[in-house]
Amino acid sequence: MNDTKIRSYRITVAYDGTAYAGWQIQPNGLTVQEVLEREFSAILSASVKVHGSGRTDQGVHARGQVAHVKIKSGMNAVQLRRAMNSRLPDDIRILAVRGVAGDFHARKSALSKEYRYFIWNSEIVPPCERLYVAHVRNPLDINAMQRAADILSGEHDFASFMANPNRHVPSTVRTVFSFNLKKHGHKITISVVGSGFLYKMVRGLAGWLIRVGSGAADAESTSDLLTGAKRTANVPTAPGRGLFLWKVTY
Amino acid sequence: MNDTKIRSYRITVAYDGTAYAGWQIQPNGLTVQEVLEREFSAILSASVKVHGSGRTDQGVHARGQVAHVKIKSGMNAVQLRRAMNSRLPDDIRILAVRGVAGDFHARKSALSKEYRYFIWNSEIVPPCERLYVAHVRNPLDINAMQRAADILSGEHDFASFMANPNRHVPSTVRTVFSFNLKKHGHKITISVVGSGFLYKMVRGLAGWLIRVGSGAADAESTSDLLTGAKRTANVPTAPGRGLFLWKVTY
Repeated sequence: MNDTKIRSYRITVAYDGTAYAGWQIQPNGLTVQEVLEREFSAILSASVKVHGSGRTDQGVHARGQVAHVKIKSGMNAVQLRRAMNSRLPDDIRILAVRGVAGDFHARKSALSKEYRYFIWNSEIVPPCERLYVAHVRNPLDINAMQRAADILSGEHDFASFMANPNRHVPSTVRTVFSFNLKKHGHKITISVVGSGFLYKMVRGLAGWLIRVGSGAADAESTSDLLTGAKRTANVPTAPGRGLFLWKVTY
Repeated sequence: MNDTKIRSYRITVAYDGTAYAGWQIQPNGLTVQEVLEREFSAILSASVKVHGSGRTDQGVHARGQVAHVKIKSGMNAVQLRRAMNSRLPDDIRILAVRGVAGDFHARKSALSKEYRYFIWNSEIVPPCERLYVAHVRNPLDINAMQRAADILSGEHDFASFMANPNRHVPSTVRTVFSFNLKKHGHKITISVVGSGFLYKMVRGLAGWLIRVGSGAADAESTSDLLTGAKRTANVPTAPGRGLFLWKVTY
């Protein structure tokens, strides 16, 4: 195929993060990006780099991670999706492949991201849910959690929710567009949509809401936490298994 | 505790069957019954036999398997449940322990059982569902499947749905009390309640419904199949991972 040009594709990926050391390639442990690059490279007989919208930590899942690739291929988007899914392990699925303009960038072009955090709030976690929820035994006050979430909504300096406050980032100001809780039976769903999130920020937000819901902290003290602008033991990092990168909007 | 007597307990167990060679103890592979007996024996310092309401195959799950044990223990039912759950792997959970009359028998006392079978009916199975559904790519005709299920409801000789027709059983007549299908998005749920089920009968019923739904067999030919009273290639055994022992009623 001498006439094939380099084209950009946007790919939507779902994965069960249980078996992976997160999204981004790293020396210790297999990552989702690594598996995707390996299979793209195999079907295209060329080295392919997969650029994600952002990292997910070890054990974190995705319902709709988005990435872009720049490749030469005689296959169309549907053929690419099928070829990839026939090779990928079944805990990683490509949900969609779409041709995009050459300047599309999965991270830089993203307008907002939605994460969902799932909590199983009763004594016993059903075995088939265990890999996809955080377990909180004692009853959580979901109204207090929602009050804290309301305080966190809007534009704030979220430095106190970043896992490593010494890491250099140009700015720790982010905007949370919506932050809502729902309960169905024993399962609590936290949905947070924002312009972007700092390192381990969503797990910090979930960890703080759990503290508030369990009565260990007042919802109203959330403002002081934001003002403090420094992560302390008050903001535990909730377990990765409860977190899903739900949707990236462009 | 010299004054403790032997007492009977009914235990309700949920498990993710993915890692197990089924319920019943067997030479090759770890089973759920084996893990339960090991942990009961450990906490009671005595050999304990766990009697289930029936077997589940390799990879089959349970939301509400029921078993009974006859044990001597200074612990009450709640303490037993907690002691067991603190030792069991998190893919097996004891949901309830209840003292029962000495003649309670998990299998013989059962009045009916409900199984649910889950099918993911679209091209791509979401990674976090993959261990708990059977995958059927082509669109299934759920109305045809329901017509077949209606024919199978009631008292019939289900020999054509038993996996090993040479196996000796006193009778292959069973009663299906209800047999219903529902679809939510791409997920089809088959619920079947019956007086009892033959070896691999539920997976045979699901396999037949899938054949009917995919157009490979007519719903109306279900009567002929029952009359044939012999399992043939017309009745495939649907994958274990889609099956849950949902509820046992006493």
